[in-house]
Amino acid sequence: MPRLCKPAMRAPEHVITLEETLEFAARAHAGKPQLPLALRLIRNTGVRKRHIVQPIEKTLHHPGFQERNRVYEVESKKLTPGVIEQALANADLKARDIDAIIYVSCTGFLMPSLTAWLINTMGFRSDTRQIPISQLGCAAGGAAINRAHDFCVAHPGSHVLIVSCELCSLCYQPDADDIGSLLSDGLFGDAVAAAVVRGEGGVGIDLERNASYLIPGTEDWISYAVKDTGFHFQLDRRVPGTMEPLAPVLRELAKDHSWDVGKLDFYLVHAGGPRILDDLAKFLEVDRNVFRHSWSTLHEYGNIASAVVLEAARRMFEEAPPAPGATGLIAGFGPGITAEMALGSWATDSVPETFA
Amino acid sequence: MPRLCKPAMRAPEHVITLEETLEFAARAHAGKPQLPLALRLIRNTGVRKRHIVQPIEKTLHHPGFQERNRVYEVESKKLTPGVIEQALANADLKARDIDAIIYVSCTGFLMPSLTAWLINTMGFRSDTRQIPISQLGCAAGGAAINRAHDFCVAHPGSHVLIVSCELCSLCYQPDADDIGSLLSDGLFGDAVAAAVVRGEGGVGIDLERNASYLIPGTEDWISYAVKDTGFHFQLDRRVPGTMEPLAPVLRELAKDHSWDVGKLDFYLVHAGGPRILDDLAKFLEVDRNVFRHSWSTLHEYGNIASAVVLEAARRMFEEAPPAPGATGLIAGFGPGITAEMALGSWATDSVPETFA
Repeated sequence: MPRLCKPAMRAPEHVITLEETLEFAARAHAGKPQLPLALRLIRNTGVRKRHIVQPIEKTLHHPGFQERNRVYEVESKKLTPGVIEQALANADLKARDIDAIIYVSCTGFLMPSLTAWLINTMGFRSDTRQIPISQLGCAAGGAAINRAHDFCVAHPGSHVLIVSCELCSLCYQPDADDIGSLLSDGLFGDAVAAAVVRGEGGVGIDLERNASYLIPGTEDWISYAVKDTGFHFQLDRRVPGTMEPLAPVLRELAKDHSWDVGKLDFYLVHAGGPRILDDLAKFLEVDRNVFRHSWSTLHEYGNIASAVVLEAARRMFEEAPPAPGATGLIAGFGPGITAEMALGSWATDSVPETFA
Repeated sequence: MPRLCKPAMRAPEHVITLEETLEFAARAHAGKPQLPLALRLIRNTGVRKRHIVQPIEKTLHHPGFQERNRVYEVESKKLTPGVIEQALANADLKARDIDAIIYVSCTGFLMPSLTAWLINTMGFRSDTRQIPISQLGCAAGGAAINRAHDFCVAHPGSHVLIVSCELCSLCYQPDADDIGSLLSDGLFGDAVAAAVVRGEGGVGIDLERNASYLIPGTEDWISYAVKDTGFHFQLDRRVPGTMEPLAPVLRELAKDHSWDVGKLDFYLVHAGGPRILDDLAKFLEVDRNVFRHSWSTLHEYGNIASAVVLEAARRMFEEAPPAPGATGLIAGFGPGITAEMALGSWATDSVPETFA
C-alpha cells in the first residue's frame, strides 16, 4: 500500500513577528477607517511569526508581476533542492528511484514547471512523470498526497515525490484593503515542503482511501483576481464558517471506511486559520488538541498554503510517531471550496506484509 | 482496461485564413528587417486557417493581462459546456457518472480552476476530483490521457473527463519580434476539446501503457516569460529538431510493449508544426500519411496546443475507426521538452472481455 514517508520542510530566512506585523499594519492603515479591524484580524490569526523570502521592506514594495515572478523562480530554485534531498533521505531513496514528481504551488507561475529544472539538475530520471498543479491553492497539499496515492496504485512499486513551494509573500498586494486582504496580510507565510509517497516499503502513513469534496456554490469564496499586478487573493467572510458543511463529509468518509471520525489517533489538517481549526474540532466533536501539529504550524509559520499538511505531518513524525496501526485523517482545504481528504494508518516495513 | 472514448471539439467562430495572416504580418512588420523571414515562417506552417475567440482586430490589440484573463474566463465558460456535453454523450455517460475532471489549459489562469464552475453548473457530483494542470503546455493533452488512465486503474470502474481549453490567441504579444514569436504568430489557434476515459465499457482506445520523457537540458527551449503583460511564448530555434532524440524513446516504449513503433495501425501525435511531423515520420521510418489526422488538424485549426491529440483522435473516430485490436500510439510534445506518450489498441464492449 502506498505510504507517505516523513516530510521535510524549510522556511526562508527572513522572519516577521506578530508585533512587527501589527506595527507595519498600523503604519500602512494609519488614519484609515479599517485600522482597528486590521489590527484585530491580525491579532486573531494565532500567528506568532512568519518566514518570508525577502526582507520585509522589499516584501511590502510591489515591483510588478514580472519581477515578482522572477523572484519566485530564483527563490524556488534556491529553496527546493535541500528540502527534496531531505525528503528523499527520509524515505531512504535516491532521486533516480522516483517515478513521478507532483509539484504544487499557487504563488508563482513557471512554464515549464520547476519539475523540468529539478529533473535536469538533481539526478531524477528522464522518464520521471511531471504533475504540476497550481490551481488548487491550499487544498493542493492534500491533492498531491491523493494523486501520489493513485499513481502508486496505478504503477505498482513506483515512488512519487511531492514538492510544495508556497512563497505567499510574493502575492502581497500593498493597495488591497478589503477585509480578506487585511486578514491574509497577517496570516500567510512562506515555506517549502517535500515528501515521498513510497509504493512499497518505508515507515509512515499507509494511504488507504482518498476523496475530494466541493462545497456547492462557493467557487467565488476563495479566489484570485488575476491582474496586471499578478495574483490578488480574495477571501469571502463566509470562509471561516465552512467547517460546518465539511465536517459531515469527513464523518461520512470515515464511516465508509468503517472508522469513527471522532476517534482517530491522528489528524493532519490544513491550518487555514484559528476559526477553521476550532470549528472543525467542534463539529467533529474532538478535542482541539488533536490538531496540535496544525496549530503549531500556524503559530510558527502562519498559513503556508499547500505546505501545511506536510509540515503538520513532519511534526508528528518528529515528535510522536503513532503506534503501528494507529488511524488518522489528512485533509487540505482550499479554493473551490474544495476539501482533499485521505484516511491512513501508521505502518513500518520491519515486518513483511505477508507476516503481519 | 481504461478506454479513451470519442473526443468532442469546438473551434470558436472567428476565422483567420493564411492569406489574412500574411496580410497582417506584412502590415505589422512593414519596413522592418524581419518581414521576409516572418512571411516565410508563416507560409511554412502548413496552417490554412485558424479559429480565434475574438475578431482579429481585437486579438491584435493587447488590453493588458487582467482584461485578457477576463476574456479567457468568459470564453472558456462559453465554449466548454457544449463540448463536454458532446464528449459525455460520445461516452454514453452523464455528468454524475464522472469521478474526476482533468482540466488542461496553458493560455489563461483561473483560481479556483474552471473545474469548480463546471461541477457547480453542469451536474457533476460534489465528490468529483479536480485535477487542473496548466504548466505542461502542448504536452498536456497526452498528460491528461495518461493521468486519466492512471486514475481509472487506481479507482476501478471510475470514469474521467478530460477538458482541454486552449485560447492561444489570448497570449498574442504585439511587440514581440523574435523568430519564435514570428513563427508562433502564424501557427497557434484556439480550440476546446474534451473526451472521457471510461474505466470500463465503451468504444475506443484501450490505454495499455503510458510514459513520459524529458529531453535533458532543454528546459528553456519552450517557455513562457511571465511579464506584466501576461504570458510571452518563447520558442528556441532548435525545437523543430527534437524529433530526432524523441523517436528512439518512442521506439523503445513500443519495444517494451512487444510492438514495433514503425508498424502500428494508428498514430495520434501533437502537430507542433510541419517539421515536427515530417521529422517524426523520417525518424520512425513511417509514411508521413500515418499522421494524417494531425496534419488535418494543423491545416484547419493551426497548433491548438494540448487539444491537438484529442482533435486528431476525434478525426480518427469520425473518419475511419480502426479494426478491433488495431494498435496505436498517442504522443503529446511540449515544454520541458516533455513527451507524454501512450500505447493503446482499438476496442469495443460488444463482446465481454472474458469471452474476447
